[in-house]
Amino acid sequence: MFFFADLTHIEVVDIIEVLGTIAFAISGIRLASAKRFDWFGAIVIGFVTATGGGTLRDLLLDVPVFWMQASRYIWCTLFAFIIVLGFRKYLVHLNNTIFWFDCIGLGLFVVVGYEKALVLGYPVWVCVSMATITGIVGGIIRDILINEVPIIFTQELYAVACILGGILFSILYYFNIQLLVIEVSTAVFVVVIRFFATRYHIKLPILKGED
Amino acid sequence: MFFFADLTHIEVVDIIEVLGTIAFAISGIRLASAKRFDWFGAIVIGFVTATGGGTLRDLLLDVPVFWMQASRYIWCTLFAFIIVLGFRKYLVHLNNTIFWFDCIGLGLFVVVGYEKALVLGYPVWVCVSMATITGIVGGIIRDILINEVPIIFTQELYAVACILGGILFSILYYFNIQLLVIEVSTAVFVVVIRFFATRYHIKLPILKGED
Amino acid sequence: MFFFADLTHIEVVDIIEVLGTIAFAISGIRLASAKRFDWFGAIVIGFVTATGGGTLRDLLLDVPVFWMQASRYIWCTLFAFIIVLGFRKYLVHLNNTIFWFDCIGLGLFVVVGYEKALVLGYPVWVCVSMATITGIVGGIIRDILINEVPIIFTQELYAVACILGGILFSILYYFNIQLLVIEVSTAVFVVVIRFFATRYHIKLPILKGED
Repeated sequence: MFFFADLTHIEVVDIIEVLGTIAFAISGIRLASAKRFDWFGAIVIGFVTATGGGTLRDLLLDVPVFWMQASRYIWCTLFAFIIVLGFRKYLVHLNNTIFWFDCIGLGLFVVVGYEKALVLGYPVWVCVSMATITGIVGGIIRDILINEVPIIFTQELYAVACILGGILFSILYYFNIQLLVIEVSTAVFVVVIRFFATRYHIKLPILKGED
Repeated sequence: MFFFADLTHIEVVDIIEVLGTIAFAISGIRLASAKRFDWFGAIVIGFVTATGGGTLRDLLLDVPVFWMQASRYIWCTLFAFIIVLGFRKYLVHLNNTIFWFDCIGLGLFVVVGYEKALVLGYPVWVCVSMATITGIVGGIIRDILINEVPIIFTQELYAVACILGGILFSILYYFNIQLLVIEVSTAVFVVVIRFFATRYHIKLPILKGED
Repeated sequence: MFFFADLTHIEVVDIIEVLGTIAFAISGIRLASAKRFDWFGAIVIGFVTATGGGTLRDLLLDVPVFWMQASRYIWCTLFAFIIVLGFRKYLVHLNNTIFWFDCIGLGLFVVVGYEKALVLGYPVWVCVSMATITGIVGGIIRDILINEVPIIFTQELYAVACILGGILFSILYYFNIQLLVIEVSTAVFVVVIRFFATRYHIKLPILKGED
């Protein structure tokens, strides 16, 4: 079985969720500003980027939607908006930093998504699916809303990092490794894959057309 | 607590829902006709515009989806389709009237969305979120389906009217005002904000890009 | 009442679901390859095309999402991906065959969707809606993800086949025809409508714009 009884552990999970939410919201708000969205539009895109994956996951798992249980996800989005609004000029020089935010957010979301399916007793492949959905669906909805083909389908080794992270979680969990170790290992693994894929321009092969 | 025991009140709520549904469906069907959708496509766009917000709200709240409990939402959409089909030539001279339909529909949807979350015991910020989702998500799905950037994110002071309406509802409810008074005040408030925003071209500031 | 106690019947339903899933996934993966998606993107589009309609149906009906209960839908998608990857050169000469796949998939999905609402005791118009949603929503999400206006709204007599199939199911069920007969009749009817509509270029009238 699986326990969240350790208060310190809960706090760690909370903190990583907050950090991930802010990181994803910033990425969404920056893309919205490039499309000249108004303030409300930018905040919505930020919120949807950060919470879209978890929302679909919770609907599929038929559990209460996480962001309706605590207001901190909305505050995180507003905080991300203020950062983008106030530090716009600096952000352009901080693409590297923001890339790191995005990587860390992804690692954390994969862990949270996996565990939500795990505590409900789902088999491994559903847990991996939920980890991946939590990691990528926010970005997909963001790209649909700004009317672009989702970047994840053509350019970035993003989803594969989620899937491999989910598989690592499954293996470590099978061998009864301590939960916190599994979580940290999985998140770091996802960040490392995404970092190297971006650094060395590793991409998945393109599925060529038929002509 | 909150009661719907008064039959007259139920009927009022029903009537405003029907009017709002027809108004939103007309707006969707007209946009579909501008994109040369076929009849089925136009009806679907009309239906989704009218019911998309409430559907997402009901999925998030995990309550039965409203339009599956009564067939009138489908009849309203077909009625809206017949109006657009039969009075096409006149509609072009009636943009002002249709704008009013849209405003009133928005006001009514905000009230319905707020109350659905309120009766489930959710805190104020979830009620305001559900009011806003009910009001704006149908139009967002409509714009995704016709492959445009949702107009709400760039041009119209639409969502802010929902949010302010939700806040007014919260304040009046806090002071134990009679429910019908709250509902009418909120709906009128939303309509007035949207009217003045459009009349005086009030918009939210654009979030400028980083270049 | 309605029974699934007959094991042979369950197996038939399973087999037609597998065939339909593969057929729809192939159509999605081919479109993704035309847009130069990477392998992961193509697999996701295939999976979403095959399962998107059923997923929305299950969320609306508030029943467990079908593809989370058995891993075969993921295997079907991977199988479809291998077919497209390995037989790409032949597929271009096989458009006719793939069109048949798509027709048969549609017929089968309509039957499955109708029955899911029927066993829950919903009225006829909800059953027809769920049959249509099961048949068409996967293709709509596919077209949104590849950033096109959903083809179903402008070109193909696709949804009407679902609706008429659902109505035929309702009539036969009303007259207490044997279930397997109803299923086969409905599926064949949908395939026939779609075949003749495509062969003789039958389309729904376009809803003309207002200018």
